[in-house]
Amino acid sequence: MSKRLPDRNTEFSRWYTQVVNQACLADYGPVKGTMVIRPYGFQLWDNIKETFDKMIKNTGHVNAYFPLFIPKSFLAREAEHVEGFAKECAVVTHTRLKADEDHGVVVDPESKLEEEIIVRPTSETVIWSMYKKWIQSYRDLPILINQWANVVRWEMRTRLFLRTSEFLWQEGHTAHATAAEAQQETMDILELYRQLADDYLAIPVITGLKTESEKFAGADKTYCIEAMMGDKRALQAGTSHNLGQNFAKAFDVTFQTKDNQEEWVWATSWGISTRLVGAVILTHGDEKGLRLPPKIAPVQVIVIPISKDDQQTAEVKAYLNPIIAALERSGVRVQVDWTDNSPGFKFNEWEMKGVPLRMEAGPRDVQQGNVVLARRDTGEKQVLAKNEAVEKIPYLLENIQQGLFDQALKFREENTHNIESYDEFKKVIKKGGFVRCGWDGTEKTETRVKEETKATIRCIPFDENPSGLTCVFSGQPAKHEVIYAKAY
Amino acid sequence: MSKRLPDRNTEFSRWYTQVVNQACLADYGPVKGTMVIRPYGFQLWDNIKETFDKMIKNTGHVNAYFPLFIPKSFLAREAEHVEGFAKECAVVTHTRLKADEDHGVVVDPESKLEEEIIVRPTSETVIWSMYKKWIQSYRDLPILINQWANVVRWEMRTRLFLRTSEFLWQEGHTAHATAAEAQQETMDILELYRQLADDYLAIPVITGLKTESEKFAGADKTYCIEAMMGDKRALQAGTSHNLGQNFAKAFDVTFQTKDNQEEWVWATSWGISTRLVGAVILTHGDEKGLRLPPKIAPVQVIVIPISKDDQQTAEVKAYLNPIIAALERSGVRVQVDWTDNSPGFKFNEWEMKGVPLRMEAGPRDVQQGNVVLARRDTGEKQVLAKNEAVEKIPYLLENIQQGLFDQALKFREENTHNIESYDEFKKVIKKGGFVRCGWDGTEKTETRVKEETKATIRCIPFDENPSGLTCVFSGQPAKHEVIYAKAY
Repeated sequence: MSKRLPDRNTEFSRWYTQVVNQACLADYGPVKGTMVIRPYGFQLWDNIKETFDKMIKNTGHVNAYFPLFIPKSFLAREAEHVEGFAKECAVVTHTRLKADEDHGVVVDPESKLEEEIIVRPTSETVIWSMYKKWIQSYRDLPILINQWANVVRWEMRTRLFLRTSEFLWQEGHTAHATAAEAQQETMDILELYRQLADDYLAIPVITGLKTESEKFAGADKTYCIEAMMGDKRALQAGTSHNLGQNFAKAFDVTFQTKDNQEEWVWATSWGISTRLVGAVILTHGDEKGLRLPPKIAPVQVIVIPISKDDQQTAEVKAYLNPIIAALERSGVRVQVDWTDNSPGFKFNEWEMKGVPLRMEAGPRDVQQGNVVLARRDTGEKQVLAKNEAVEKIPYLLENIQQGLFDQALKFREENTHNIESYDEFKKVIKKGGFVRCGWDGTEKTETRVKEETKATIRCIPFDENPSGLTCVFSGQPAKHEVIYAKAY
Repeated sequence: MSKRLPDRNTEFSRWYTQVVNQACLADYGPVKGTMVIRPYGFQLWDNIKETFDKMIKNTGHVNAYFPLFIPKSFLAREAEHVEGFAKECAVVTHTRLKADEDHGVVVDPESKLEEEIIVRPTSETVIWSMYKKWIQSYRDLPILINQWANVVRWEMRTRLFLRTSEFLWQEGHTAHATAAEAQQETMDILELYRQLADDYLAIPVITGLKTESEKFAGADKTYCIEAMMGDKRALQAGTSHNLGQNFAKAFDVTFQTKDNQEEWVWATSWGISTRLVGAVILTHGDEKGLRLPPKIAPVQVIVIPISKDDQQTAEVKAYLNPIIAALERSGVRVQVDWTDNSPGFKFNEWEMKGVPLRMEAGPRDVQQGNVVLARRDTGEKQVLAKNEAVEKIPYLLENIQQGLFDQALKFREENTHNIESYDEFKKVIKKGGFVRCGWDGTEKTETRVKEETKATIRCIPFDENPSGLTCVFSGQPAKHEVIYAKAY
C-alpha cells in the first residue's frame, strides 16, 4: 500500500520527492547527482520525446548523433561559453584501470591523456567543429539537425528530474545563411515548445526573451517558455537560442554566398529535457499523487476488475475483454490490473501514478451491462452502459486534458500580480507567485533584487507593455515590463 | 559527384571507409576514437532500433534509463567483469575547469573526486546495485528492463560503426526467480536477434554458444549471432548472456521465494549496437556503394524527375505528385530529388546511398503514362504504366529484401568449408571464409590456432554434430563441432 504523502501545501518539496518515489518514476543513482529513470517515468519521457520528435520532423529537421566527448580546448574557444560551463564539467583524464596489491583496482597512471576530455554539457562546440567540415557553400545550408542525448553538468544539490548531473534532452543545432533565417528558426522552435507545453503537457507557458544575465552562455539572444509550478515558483521549461555568428567565428565556419562572398554562418540551438517530467509533476500533482495529461500518459485508462472468487473473476474477465479490445481499437492506451491486490490498494496505486481514467467492473456491473468510470482530475464518478463508455472515453480524455490546462492557467492567473511598489513586490515574492512589473533594464537592478528577494527576471514577455511603467526597484522609467519570480 | 570507390575485391577496408563517407553515414569526431553519426546513418540506425524496440515490447520488456557514471568500486565487485573492461575505461577524476594565466583553461586540481568515476562500458553493475533496492520477493520478479544508451570502451584502432570508443546500443538486463527462466530469456532474446538479422537486415546468421574464452566478462554462458561479411570475415552481430547468479552475488541481491526461502536472483543481459549498421554495409555493399534492405532503408523509393526546362519540370511534377501520394498511402517511404544536379549525378548518389528502388519519369513517360523503375540490388530496369508501378512497388520491395538475404546466404554457404586437416584449415583461413570442423574443447588449442592463423572460434553452432569428428588442430576426438574464422 502506498504511504501517505506529505502535505502538499506545507511541505511541497518533500511531497514532490515522495510522488517521484511512490509513483515509481525515478530513483537516485549510486554516483551522487545521478538519476535512474524507472520504466513508468521513462515511458512518460518517451511519450514527450515522440511528440516533439514528430513536430520537428514535420518542420524539416533530422536527427543525428555527435560524440559524448569534447576536447578541453574546444570548450575554451568561445569565451562566454567556457565561462558558463567550466564550473560543472566532468573531466576524463585516464583510460585504464589496473590491479594494485594494496589498493585493489586503481586508475593506471600510465593511461593519462595528453589532453583532458570533457563530457559534453551541451554540444555546440563539437557540432560546430563538424559543421566546419560540412559547410562550404550556401548550397549546404540550412542544416537542421537535432540530437536526443545525455549531457552532464556537475550538480551537488540534486533533485530528481529538476537538477541532476546527467540528464536526457534534445538539442537542436541549426546553421543558416542569413541572420533573418536564424532568427526565424529560433522563434519557430519556441512556438513548437509552446505547443508542446500547452497542448500536450497541459502546462500554460509564458513566452519571452531572457535578460542578458540569464541568457545561454554563447548566445546573442535566448528565448524561453516559463511556467508556474504548484508552489507558485517558476520553471524554465525550454529555451531557444539565436547564437548569431559566435560559434561560427569560434570554429571558423564560413560559407560562400550566392554572390560569391565569404561569410560566417548563422546559428541557433535549442533544448528541452527530462526536466519537463518534473514540470508535469509539479504542475498537475495533487494530494493523491500524480495527475497526468492524457496525451502523454503511459496508461490512459486503468481497468480494475472487482471479484470475490475465481468464478467471478472469470465472468468479469469475459465481460471486460471485448470492452478493452474496443478501446484499443480506438487508440486508447488501456491496461488492466489483474494483480492480487485489493481494489482499495489498486485505486490508491493508480491514482498515485496519475492515470487519467479508472474503469471498474464487478459482478453487478456485468449483470447490468455497466462499467464505473472515475476521473483522476476531478474525482467524479459515473456509471455508464458499456457501449456508451467505449464511445465516450476518447471525449472524456480530451476533456481531462483541457481541464488540467484550464486549472493550471487559472492558478497561474490567480497568482500573477501586477505590482508597482517594491514593498508589495517583496510580499508577493515571499508568499509565492509571479510579479509583472517595470524594470529599468539595468543588470544592477536585477542583481540587487535577486540578492534581496531571491527572485529573478524569468523573461521579458512578448506581450509586454512598458509604456507608463516605472521600475519596481529603482523608480526609474521602465525599459521593459518583465516577469519576476523565484525559480527552480 | 561522388568519387569512384576503391576496388571492393582488393581493397575491401578502404572501400568500406569510402562508402561510409560518400553515403554520408558517419564521420570521425574530434576526440580520437569517437564517431559522428550523420542524419542518413542515424535514420538507418533508428529504423533498426524501432524494429527491435517493438519486438521486445511485444514480449513484455520495458525501457528505462540508468546513469552514465559508475563508481570505480562497483566495476571491481565482479572479478571477471573488471578484468574484462579495466583496460578500456574512460575515467572521470575532476569536475571543474578554471582559467590559468599561463595555460589558458586548465583542470581545477581542487575539484578532484574522492572516488574516481567510470563512464559505463556496460551497465550490469549500476543496474544490479539498483535491483538490490527493488527486489525483495518473488512478486517483484521477473524484471524485464532494457535501455537504449551510449557506452564507452576506449579504442585506439577505430573503424566507424565497427570499433569506436563510444557507441550506441541497447542493453537488456533481466532478473528472474529461477535458473530455467533466465536460460529461457537468454534464448528467447537470441531468437529475436536472429529474426532481426535474418528478416530485417537480410543478414543470415549462425546462432550458437561462445567458448569460455570468448564469452562476456561475468557471464556463465554467452550466445551469439554470427554473420559472414563481404570479405568473408566473421562479425559478431549480437550477444545474449546468461549471467547465472554472478551479479546477484556481487551486489548481494536476494529474494524471498514462494516457500519463504532466501535465494540469489538469476540474471541475463543482452545487446546489439550501431555495429549492425557496419554489418549491413559489409554484407550488402557492392562496387557502387551501399545496398539497403527495404525494411530498414530510410528511403525505399527515390524518385528522379527528368526535365530540360521549367515547363517540363512543372509537367513532370504534376504527373508525379499523385503517384508519390499513392505510394505514401501504401506506407512506402518515398522521396523526390528536386535538386539542380544532373540525372547522372543523382543516379550515382542514390545508388551510393543504397536506396532499393529508383523511379524515373521524364516528358516522354508523362505522355505515355509510364514510369521507369530500376532495382538497386540487380540493376534491372523496367518500364511500367504508372498505376501498375504503384501496385507493384510494395511487392518489388519484398522481393529485393528476399533477394539480398538469398544472395548473402549463398555467399556464406559458398565460403563455408567442412575441413579435417590443419593444412587445409590454414589455406581456407588465409584465403578467407568460415571453417566448420572439430575442436577438442581445450583453451590451449583455441589459443594456438589463434596465434598461428588469427582465426577464432566464432561459436559452437546449435546444429553442431561432433560425433566422429577429430580436432582439426590436435587430432584428438572432437568435443564440439565449431565455426572458425577471422573476425571483425
